[in-house]
Amino acid sequence: MFRGNILPFISACSVGIGAYLGSKYERYMNQPSGMYSNAKAENYFPWTLHASSLTPYEAKPSQGSAQNSNSSQIMKYGFPSLENVRVFDDYVLAYDKRNRNAHWVFEHLAPDKLPSKQTADRKKSNFFEDKNIHEKFRSYLNDYKYSGYDRGHLAAAGNHRHSQQAMDQTFTLSNISPQVGEGFNRGIWNNLEKYVRSIARKNRNTYVCTGPLYLPRREADGKMYVKYEVIGQNNVAVPTHFFKVVAIETNAGEIEILSFVLPNQPMKDDVPLKNFLTPLDAIERASGLLMFDKIPLNKVKLMNHQKPR
Amino acid sequence: MFRGNILPFISACSVGIGAYLGSKYERYMNQPSGMYSNAKAENYFPWTLHASSLTPYEAKPSQGSAQNSNSSQIMKYGFPSLENVRVFDDYVLAYDKRNRNAHWVFEHLAPDKLPSKQTADRKKSNFFEDKNIHEKFRSYLNDYKYSGYDRGHLAAAGNHRHSQQAMDQTFTLSNISPQVGEGFNRGIWNNLEKYVRSIARKNRNTYVCTGPLYLPRREADGKMYVKYEVIGQNNVAVPTHFFKVVAIETNAGEIEILSFVLPNQPMKDDVPLKNFLTPLDAIERASGLLMFDKIPLNKVKLMNHQKPR
Repeated sequence: MFRGNILPFISACSVGIGAYLGSKYERYMNQPSGMYSNAKAENYFPWTLHASSLTPYEAKPSQGSAQNSNSSQIMKYGFPSLENVRVFDDYVLAYDKRNRNAHWVFEHLAPDKLPSKQTADRKKSNFFEDKNIHEKFRSYLNDYKYSGYDRGHLAAAGNHRHSQQAMDQTFTLSNISPQVGEGFNRGIWNNLEKYVRSIARKNRNTYVCTGPLYLPRREADGKMYVKYEVIGQNNVAVPTHFFKVVAIETNAGEIEILSFVLPNQPMKDDVPLKNFLTPLDAIERASGLLMFDKIPLNKVKLMNHQKPR
Repeated sequence: MFRGNILPFISACSVGIGAYLGSKYERYMNQPSGMYSNAKAENYFPWTLHASSLTPYEAKPSQGSAQNSNSSQIMKYGFPSLENVRVFDDYVLAYDKRNRNAHWVFEHLAPDKLPSKQTADRKKSNFFEDKNIHEKFRSYLNDYKYSGYDRGHLAAAGNHRHSQQAMDQTFTLSNISPQVGEGFNRGIWNNLEKYVRSIARKNRNTYVCTGPLYLPRREADGKMYVKYEVIGQNNVAVPTHFFKVVAIETNAGEIEILSFVLPNQPMKDDVPLKNFLTPLDAIERASGLLMFDKIPLNKVKLMNHQKPR
């Protein structure tokens, strides 16, 4: 709220407030009831200096149901959220403002987009913050510094080597997730990206959807917990896993689907990629996403190398 | 994907797949590289039996930027996600398909909607699953059973006592989050709801935005982690905290804002509510939401009882 033009204060505003919320309640829970007070909070956090929105926030419901609603009055002051879909030259991204990662990125690959002679040079591309994401929800270069994690591409830079501008656009932090470097981003994840390109070179069209997952695991108390690290002053989430779903239109016009889930952990890079094939339905449920829902079932020849039943 | 009419299989499909994904990788990580295989997965999970969508999924981008994009081809097979906004008679809700909780719910309260003589009877309302949420992302009555958590309202039932239908609609599980019962849902959270109604009875208009939070805390290794339980076969998230933001249009036409964060933990119910006042900016950053962004700063007289600076 309060979209003033207070640019000098943006960086001050973005410092440590997420961490503050976490530690605040940590402190609170360790104190006797009623002893907690946040009276001093305003001294530390200039929260009335709400930074300007660098892009206007579009507030429209994406879906409605009841005709009998007084929603126009209820929502008079604006919708608190609508998913941010970002359209780049050569990929499309939906941004998760809470976790400061993409929800998903979508790419279309084809033989003519993957020339053997590269036009783009990866060394000319630089990581940059996405100014089109509201400053409150953006991830920053500083968030990754000293985190121990690589800045891992979701839409792979190597998929967009036909154009320097297209490759450059994959370096926006909206397309980046914290990934384990050695043994993951520089190993098996890279292998998967290369494998997808090898598929794309041999088929008419290849559609790739990539994104983070935050998967639960059972702990000693027998209960299931989702647990993931957050890094930097803006609490950028470190996904526990990543998915990559590939829909291949073969030269014969048939469709094959491959769907992978890889843990964000160091692994030997000679683990066969087929070990990571995961039922698409499980990925959909875990991510909250529906993928390729416009493909009719009778057009799909193979899913993870098997006939759809 | 594959929206067939396979209703008899819906419940089978929804069983245990999230848990599967979690335990699968837990198992994998405890084995030497390369030993893992999910060859048997298909035997357990009838994942090609994709259940039908009970409501058609509207796939439109909510926001775009580049004019130079070939996004129509990239997205030929549909967008994987757009936030689900649900419009009920008397409140509006955005649904978080990944966590199977609302992102936020929005209510408008006013004196004439809070009659001293109740029209609606809470005992006549029953909890029900929200058939308008895709079955893959819905929470189910069974998910809450034996979880140890209350089915806690976000839009409070007591705010909608002017109409049985309006009250009934607050009992959809989309408006419900797992809440600690004793000492929270039946204690301090209830106190907060009553306090908001007492405000609403004395002012022209009151706008209330309520939702879950998943806040990080620092662990022994010095790093920050988000950790929360998930319950039931569909991994319904148990939020670590809840926020409630209240915008009050006074009878004098001024605006006051109150913003609270309460931990989803048992507490003594005589803790003063003012102890939970939290800077709105911190709530916005932690939730990924912008709240009341259409209110101009110069119209706000008080924020958490203080003059906005």
